[in-house]
Order: sequence, then structure tokens, then C-alpha cells
Amino acid sequence: MPQLRQNIATREWVIIATERAKRPEDFAQTDKEKTKQELPEYSSQCPFCPGNEKNSPTEKFSIHNDKGWKVRVIPNKFPALVSEGKKEFKNEGIIRHMDGFGIHEVIIETPLHNTTIALMENAQVENIIKTYRNRYMSAVNDERIKLVTIFKNHGPSAGASQEHSHSQLIASPVVPAHIRSRIEDAMRYYDDNMECVFCKMIKGEIKSGERIAAQTENFVAFIPYAAFSPFHLWLLPKKHNPCFQHISDDEVEEFSSILKEIFAKIYHGLNNPDYNYVIRSLPGKARHNDFFHWYLSIVPRVTKTAGFEIGSGMYINVALPEQSAKFLREYKL
Amino acid sequence: MPQLRQNIATREWVIIATERAKRPEDFAQTDKEKTKQELPEYSSQCPFCPGNEKNSPTEKFSIHNDKGWKVRVIPNKFPALVSEGKKEFKNEGIIRHMDGFGIHEVIIETPLHNTTIALMENAQVENIIKTYRNRYMSAVNDERIKLVTIFKNHGPSAGASQEHSHSQLIASPVVPAHIRSRIEDAMRYYDDNMECVFCKMIKGEIKSGERIAAQTENFVAFIPYAAFSPFHLWLLPKKHNPCFQHISDDEVEEFSSILKEIFAKIYHGLNNPDYNYVIRSLPGKARHNDFFHWYLSIVPRVTKTAGFEIGSGMYINVALPEQSAKFLREYKL
Repeated sequence: MPQLRQNIATREWVIIATERAKRPEDFAQTDKEKTKQELPEYSSQCPFCPGNEKNSPTEKFSIHNDKGWKVRVIPNKFPALVSEGKKEFKNEGIIRHMDGFGIHEVIIETPLHNTTIALMENAQVENIIKTYRNRYMSAVNDERIKLVTIFKNHGPSAGASQEHSHSQLIASPVVPAHIRSRIEDAMRYYDDNMECVFCKMIKGEIKSGERIAAQTENFVAFIPYAAFSPFHLWLLPKKHNPCFQHISDDEVEEFSSILKEIFAKIYHGLNNPDYNYVIRSLPGKARHNDFFHWYLSIVPRVTKTAGFEIGSGMYINVALPEQSAKFLREYKL
Repeated sequence: MPQLRQNIATREWVIIATERAKRPEDFAQTDKEKTKQELPEYSSQCPFCPGNEKNSPTEKFSIHNDKGWKVRVIPNKFPALVSEGKKEFKNEGIIRHMDGFGIHEVIIETPLHNTTIALMENAQVENIIKTYRNRYMSAVNDERIKLVTIFKNHGPSAGASQEHSHSQLIASPVVPAHIRSRIEDAMRYYDDNMECVFCKMIKGEIKSGERIAAQTENFVAFIPYAAFSPFHLWLLPKKHNPCFQHISDDEVEEFSSILKEIFAKIYHGLNNPDYNYVIRSLPGKARHNDFFHWYLSIVPRVTKTAGFEIGSGMYINVALPEQSAKFLREYKL
């Protein structure tokens, strides 16, 4: 009998195919070409490699040491939203539109062509997270901006068009309706329970333990009870914090170490699958907000989306969250 | 300058890449292998072809003439939800679940292995729509069922696992949160305006005319102002009707003819792209409901989802809805 499970924060239902569930190790990728280690350290064709900076637009930010840049931020060459434009909402009958202004940046995570978070030193992951924080704060300080999203696509089936490890930041003057819904749901949960729904999940998952993939003193990574795909992970600060940009330096260090640990386990345990991650944070700059909680959501692309999901809009997860979490938790690096 | 457009019914925003937009004819598929006409009429390996009925489970419904069945409905051999099981909601802390009961059927749309709606006689499309109505009514009469979704995946990139033309019905005891949100939004629009938001869109689109792809006396197909992908189409009854199952026999005939016309234009004009469609209908059996309006949503798979959408959750449409609609409207069959 399949199970219907509901995520208490997103209120989405997922079908867990308990009887047809695969074993965690069955999700390991078999495509050996994907191994980053087999790529060269430098590619003359790559716009993100050191020495090729002249081919990419003006630098917005970078972290350096005496050997050169460690992380570098540039505007996206083909931006989805552009910095010119006014915030003028036209609303006439069925027509609602605005100029497509916003910010679209590329965060080049390393000078090396052939590495990825799973293989980096913790200190380099810290450089990336500090860069995220800097760019997040810079974007959110533009009062026309209402939502900042930092995301990463790793590998072609996750939509990455460049091999060289990078993330993107998109800042938009509007909040998409599906994001707005989640925020409203979190608010409603708080009003009904006087508790942040994410704090509730964190406490419940830590108490149960069976879906925990990794944890440190201040951060926890688990596969949600109603995870919509195999190895879908949430990584959250244990202490309530609505906005990613308020992460402290100490927390950056700890967050980087658990992020690295998770990706190392995924890389070695599942043979470097493609993946996406996104940082979900309360829109705006609120330091004091009781109902929302920032988190990083990771979606490894270990299965192809089947016809059922595409057509029906309901997800089927062919892995048991408890088994996938156990696999990651016990995986020896 | 890109444009941000909002759909007044779904409240979703989309980025229309006005400057980088492709011409409608650029979306025509070049993969000649996809032409249905080159497949055999019958395949001995196909579980849906006549003569192979013994390989598929018990028939739930069929439409016959003296030569045999024209449309046939069977339970899905690998059901996402199953008919056993109780409707018992468990809600303890972070755990919310139910047995995965429901209905999962396959609608075999034709005895021929090598045809598709675009190439059928109108009378056969009518048989399919009548079958949809029958199965919809049958499912919704089970009081444990809260949502019935009929959808079709055409071609491998749309998730179809069988070549033989078919659709699916999934009936679930829960309403997914993203569907619930849309219904709430429609209700709110009605409360604010005392008008169905879909009726409003229909009137606005007919008055403007520039996004209309096809229309008959009682049905209209248009590319929404804020369409999230190229050639994304909505097909609706002009007269307010919340639930698909209340479609009359006369309406079935007219709906089938416009559906056939749209798919023939897509098939010939864009060289048989893969596509998905889904019927969105008010959950339940309401005959009198002022705020929701059933429709069929078509998503041709003419572009690959790029990394931006996957990561950010915001869609970029690289086609102008007005140009795509004009292309379909003026395409001569």
C-alpha cells in the first residue's frame, strides 16, 4: 500500500511508493563520465577560469588571497532580469505587468575548473557562503527588490550550462505566487500554534532521529518526512532565524562544514549525481520574524521525473526517506 | 527589456524574454523520428493494441462499435494509488499521513498504434471526451475521493512510457496544496469582484483577440497573457461551468472539434512536439459554483527547461504569447 504523506510546512502531499521503493544504493549514478576529477584543472574555453576574466562582464565582488581570486561574482551575461527599468505596475483588465528589472549574478565558486563543493576544503566553502551573504545583503538593500534567490545547478540534468562550479543569484521585484503561499502557510501555522513550523519540524526530526542525514551543534540536515524525491534534503539552522543574510561568521563556518559533509556523502555515496539547491529565506530584511525560518533545499537528480508527476502535478517518491537518510547518516567518508 | 507578466487567475509571475524571443516557427521540432505516421498500425509488443487485451488488467469501461472497442479503460498496471485502504488521517507532531488509496486508470484512446488526437476523426475524439466524462463521474461518486485529475503525456520528453496514444486518470483523497491555492485565489477574486476570474479572462482575451489560437461558439483556446512556456494554451468553455463532468453531449461534440483543431495545428505547424495536457476542474461535484471554471491546459514540450527555472522556481518564456497565438490562429490546415 503506498502512503500519502504531507509536509507540515509546505502542506504539499507526496505519494511514497513504499512497496516499489528502491534501495538507497540503487540510486548511485552509473555514468562514469560525470566524475569531476577527470576534468582538467583549467580550460582555455571556460569563461569562468582564471586568465579568461576579460571574456566575462564587470566583476561585482570577489574574495582574494595573494595568489588571486578565490570566489568571483559577475553579472549574468544573459540576464533573465536587468538592472534598468522602473517599478511601475500596470493593471488593466487581464493585463498585469512590470518592467523586467532585477539582478542576475553568477557566483564563480572556485578558480579550479574541476572541483565541486564535495571535493573542496572547508575554508573554500566558507568563501562561497560569505560571498552568498554579501550578494544577498547587497541585493536586498535595493528597495525595489522583494525577493532574493540563491541557487545552484550542478550537472547537465540539473540545468547547468557550464561545467565550472558556479551558483546564481536572482533578485526580483515580485514574489512568485507559490513562494507567497508558503509564507502565508507558515504564518497561519504560527497563528494557530504560536510556534514556527520549521522549528517544530527541526525538534520533531531531531527527536525521532530516523530521517537525520547529518548535524552539528547549530545546524541539522534531514530528509523531510514527506520528501518529494529520493535524497531530497533540507539543511536548517537549529536556532530560529528568518533570513539567510543574518547568518553570523561563526555560523558560516559551521554551515560550510555540514554543507561540505552532505555533498561529500552524496558525491561518494551516489557517484556524483547532478543536483540543484536553493536557499529559501524570508523576503526582505526582517531580523525579527517569528514564523519563517531560512533553509537550504537540496534536490539530487537521481531519478527522471516520470510521466505521472509531469501530468498530474503530484509527486511520487520511490525512496523511503528513512532509508535514504540512514544511508547518508552512516556513510563513511 | 524583459517583461514581468502576471496571470490574474493563478497569480504566478513569468519573465517574458521579449528581446531574446524566438520566432514561432523556430520551435518546430526537427527530430523526424517522432512522426507517428511512420509507426506501424499494430504492434505485437504493445499492451494497448487490440488482441493483446489479455496482457492488461480488467477493463473498467469501453466504447464499442461492431468492429470492436474504440476507447478502452483499464486500471494502471503500476498504480500510484490503490483502491484498498481506509481514509484515516494520522496527525501526530511532524507526521501527517494517510493510506495511499485512490484510483489510477489508463484511457486507451484508440485501437490504432500509430495515431494521435491531431490525426483522428472528430468522432473518435468525441469518444475519448465521453470516456473522460464517464470516468470522471465514476471517480467523483466515491465519497472518499476529493480530486480527480485527467491528464495526457504525449511523447518521451513529456513522460509517456508507451507509444500508443493514451491518457490517465488519477483520483486522490487529498487536494495538493498548489491546487488548493489556486482555488482559494479564484474564490478571493470572486469575493473582490463578484465575477469568476476565468470568465473575466475569457472576455478580455476575446475582446483583445491577439492571444486567441482558435474559437467556436462555446469554446475558446488562447495563450494566456502570462503563459509560462512557448505555446502554453488554455482551452475553456465560454459559459461558466465549474466542473468538467457537467459538459453536455452537444458541448462534447464542439469541444472535441476545437481540441482536434488545436492539436492538428500544433502537430503540423510544430512538427509533432511532445506535450502534456491536464483538465483542471473544481474538486467535487458542485453544479453551482460561481468562482471556479474548468479548463484544459496544454503544455507543448518545445523547449528544454533551462537551469534558471529549475533553480529559481521562476519561469522564463522565450516566446511572445501574441506571436505564438497568431502563428496557430493563422496556420492553415
